[in-house]
Amino acid sequence: MNGAESLVRTLHAGGVEVCFANPGTSEMHFVAALDRVEGVRCVLALFEGVVTAAADGYARMTDKPAATLLHLGPGLANGLANLHNARRARTPIVNIVGEHATFHRRFDAPLTADIEALAGQHSAWMRTSENSLTVAADGAEAIAASLSPPGGIATLILPADTAWGEGGAIAPVPAIPARERVDEAAVRHVAGLLRSGEPVMLLIGDKTLRGRGPELAGRIAEATGARLMAPMSNARMERGAGRVAVERVPYPVDVALTKLAGIRHLVLVGAVAPVAFFGYPGKPSELKPVDCDVHVLATPAQDGIDALTRLADAVNAAGTPPPLAPASRPALPNGGALDPAAIAAVIGALLPENAIVVDESITTGRDFFRATMGAPPHDWLQLTGGSIGIGIPLATGAAVACPDRQVVTLQADGSGMYTLQGLWTQAREGLKVLTLIFANRSYEILKGELAGVGANPGPKAHDMLSLDRPALDWVHLARGMGVEAARAETPDALIRAIRAGLDAPGPYLVEVVL
Amino acid sequence: MNGAESLVRTLHAGGVEVCFANPGTSEMHFVAALDRVEGVRCVLALFEGVVTAAADGYARMTDKPAATLLHLGPGLANGLANLHNARRARTPIVNIVGEHATFHRRFDAPLTADIEALAGQHSAWMRTSENSLTVAADGAEAIAASLSPPGGIATLILPADTAWGEGGAIAPVPAIPARERVDEAAVRHVAGLLRSGEPVMLLIGDKTLRGRGPELAGRIAEATGARLMAPMSNARMERGAGRVAVERVPYPVDVALTKLAGIRHLVLVGAVAPVAFFGYPGKPSELKPVDCDVHVLATPAQDGIDALTRLADAVNAAGTPPPLAPASRPALPNGGALDPAAIAAVIGALLPENAIVVDESITTGRDFFRATMGAPPHDWLQLTGGSIGIGIPLATGAAVACPDRQVVTLQADGSGMYTLQGLWTQAREGLKVLTLIFANRSYEILKGELAGVGANPGPKAHDMLSLDRPALDWVHLARGMGVEAARAETPDALIRAIRAGLDAPGPYLVEVVL
Repeated sequence: MNGAESLVRTLHAGGVEVCFANPGTSEMHFVAALDRVEGVRCVLALFEGVVTAAADGYARMTDKPAATLLHLGPGLANGLANLHNARRARTPIVNIVGEHATFHRRFDAPLTADIEALAGQHSAWMRTSENSLTVAADGAEAIAASLSPPGGIATLILPADTAWGEGGAIAPVPAIPARERVDEAAVRHVAGLLRSGEPVMLLIGDKTLRGRGPELAGRIAEATGARLMAPMSNARMERGAGRVAVERVPYPVDVALTKLAGIRHLVLVGAVAPVAFFGYPGKPSELKPVDCDVHVLATPAQDGIDALTRLADAVNAAGTPPPLAPASRPALPNGGALDPAAIAAVIGALLPENAIVVDESITTGRDFFRATMGAPPHDWLQLTGGSIGIGIPLATGAAVACPDRQVVTLQADGSGMYTLQGLWTQAREGLKVLTLIFANRSYEILKGELAGVGANPGPKAHDMLSLDRPALDWVHLARGMGVEAARAETPDALIRAIRAGLDAPGPYLVEVVL
Repeated sequence: MNGAESLVRTLHAGGVEVCFANPGTSEMHFVAALDRVEGVRCVLALFEGVVTAAADGYARMTDKPAATLLHLGPGLANGLANLHNARRARTPIVNIVGEHATFHRRFDAPLTADIEALAGQHSAWMRTSENSLTVAADGAEAIAASLSPPGGIATLILPADTAWGEGGAIAPVPAIPARERVDEAAVRHVAGLLRSGEPVMLLIGDKTLRGRGPELAGRIAEATGARLMAPMSNARMERGAGRVAVERVPYPVDVALTKLAGIRHLVLVGAVAPVAFFGYPGKPSELKPVDCDVHVLATPAQDGIDALTRLADAVNAAGTPPPLAPASRPALPNGGALDPAAIAAVIGALLPENAIVVDESITTGRDFFRATMGAPPHDWLQLTGGSIGIGIPLATGAAVACPDRQVVTLQADGSGMYTLQGLWTQAREGLKVLTLIFANRSYEILKGELAGVGANPGPKAHDMLSLDRPALDWVHLARGMGVEAARAETPDALIRAIRAGLDAPGPYLVEVVL
């Protein structure tokens, strides 16, 4: 078999079931090989930023890597912003980038680029395959590398002749190391802090925001008086009624510092120490009191759940009832303006059980997290790397991963425009995604940031933050890509539109006009 | 004044009149400074790939750099694919990328990235500013670097505190070197080839495709019997009735080799030796006969027009009448199917005088170039680096540069989807751009490429090349971004729609359904 087929068969044997693709000439043998291998679903996207974020969303829900298929350096470049986010989410991805045939590279053809220079900083592992005999083994290593704790992007660069050359054979996936168990000394050290009487905060992140993580951390906090928080942005949180509600470090520096005031010991469990999103004149970069010590119980690559289990035992918290969020939904608004508070209430009231929420709501969504705390259990996926334009495609990948669950995308309009092409893939694949576009028709967050950095804006500056000349019409944009859509300008209309969207068999978009 | 203001004032003093921007927090001081400096027009785009291609289109028409304004590593990443094209077009661009404040970089905040690693390969010049005292001088150097022959991308990375810090002052732009004059020996050598009686082809590229370049080359060809061609893809050609028509090296390898068969000497004038767009099994990478020698009369950085002037003198061709294209338009089709031939005839018949044509028509447009050879004089701008998604934003920048000229974008549908956000900027700025979307609803070119690389496709592979499930509705997409639009399914409807579009005061889009 040729190299492409050996690679596709290796991916399949290694558990890669989905390939998100925007292929070109150099990837044609890979695409052709998909016809000869059952069991790898190929999902087409019309822009590479959709490909990479969809792979991210898929793996956040399955803990298995999807493959991407990108066309040469420029195709990779278009996908980099969402690979940046995926790297920050520690998402396993087998990132396949086509390259010119090895004999063709030296001629500097128009599409020639230094692919390794572009992909290096996003990749936990990277290799350019040398020939069709080894490409399958390279793919097998890529799978293992992507899944090695804490999880990351494995970039496999595939010169076209490694795909069309013969002599390929399926390669076995190397052993994937288990998450490292935390030293007993680290557990004892943190247990000592918790018993010291000094103010302690547990900051739990990554996989400890799922499964037994929040519950264990909640028991420990309850038993010891420690406080409990999560990082500002997280790949996936399991939350809702009957689960421990974990508050997040706020975005504004001053608010975050107030929130963490008085903490003497910050204990990291699968998280890194919180830092400000941006540097501001005269403000600190580290979001903790100056006299607060930072302690690592478990890195994101270590087994945080095991560490929390042992820590709960060490502080006699294993039997302490965790503070579970009671089932509770906001009341549906009765008339009034369609402002962020009303929107939050509607979402909190209507969010279906077991929903997957993708949150790129930026300014409009500041109350959404609180308003859904007591909604039926659900997952909450965030923008992890700050590179806007993740929501629509991340939701697309999550829906491919979980066809039986409703995906709800909470999407700011400015950010949504970066990767709106993902709506077409939702239509093509018939995915159950309800997208709420919050149309404030501005880069609203930047108006606050202008003040935050001490800039003194005039009319030209404000004009650069306004998206209302002309107003984007998201109903037209959605229909242009085959997605049914409605506009809501009142709370009642929003309620009706969300109900219609949840009833729809496929994707549905609501333009929520603020 | 602060660093941002000193930079904006330096850009203005250095002749930078337009800034295409998609800013974020770290660029807010730069945006605020625009209010204090008259004469720099700031054009907002909703995606960075629009920013960079618009800057490319602007400079192709003005020979002056525009500034970009991009937000950190991810914002740059989104703009890289079209910077790749701009680099291949040798377009001057002052590419400004915001960066975290210097004190904030070490904290690895979510948006932190290695910006230099991303921008390096596209940049003829690159610098990260160190403080507010030197940022203006860095900007002045960037202007000079962008304009230094042959022209290129000067990337200025702007940590936020270099913008908000005080003590800035306007800096003068360093002297820009003139294009180097070609050695007399090179002119004599080529004159000797032309007199040798052996088959010679002049391949003229870059700036020699404008002004007196084609005419001089035409005189030389006419006088000596040499053949004349241009590279496959060119930043800008001046052509049409009354100008010398220059054929381009064809895209398909076999066709190109046939076209160049028999040539013994290939003389490069502002061009590089032609290579195949992709490598194919069993096909050569170099698009010239194996026994053909390559000679450089002028590199793209040298003064090719001067070299042609002297060469014309050397071969006594200065007085030879050049073979000018006669005024001639195809007849408008009378009924029949709306196929590529009919579309080509309509475009050739209706293209207005002095139009700027942006050609990303891929497969549908194979006859457009020939059909417009005798149309009134116009400029023809192409996809130079093979990274699709340039058309809509390149046209946007060209229209900003030339408000008195009609821009006509010949746009394939698959490619158009990469940067459709550019339509909104066209609406916002009221630009005279007529966009024809060729809706064949497939990555049609890849169907040929599948065969070309010897792949044996099945239904899954074909499905990856089809955009008809669902069909994109470009009329809805355009209206969603505030652009008036119509659909044409017959030649008559296309004629009516183009006339309506040319009469419209602002942008207009026609979905041409094949």
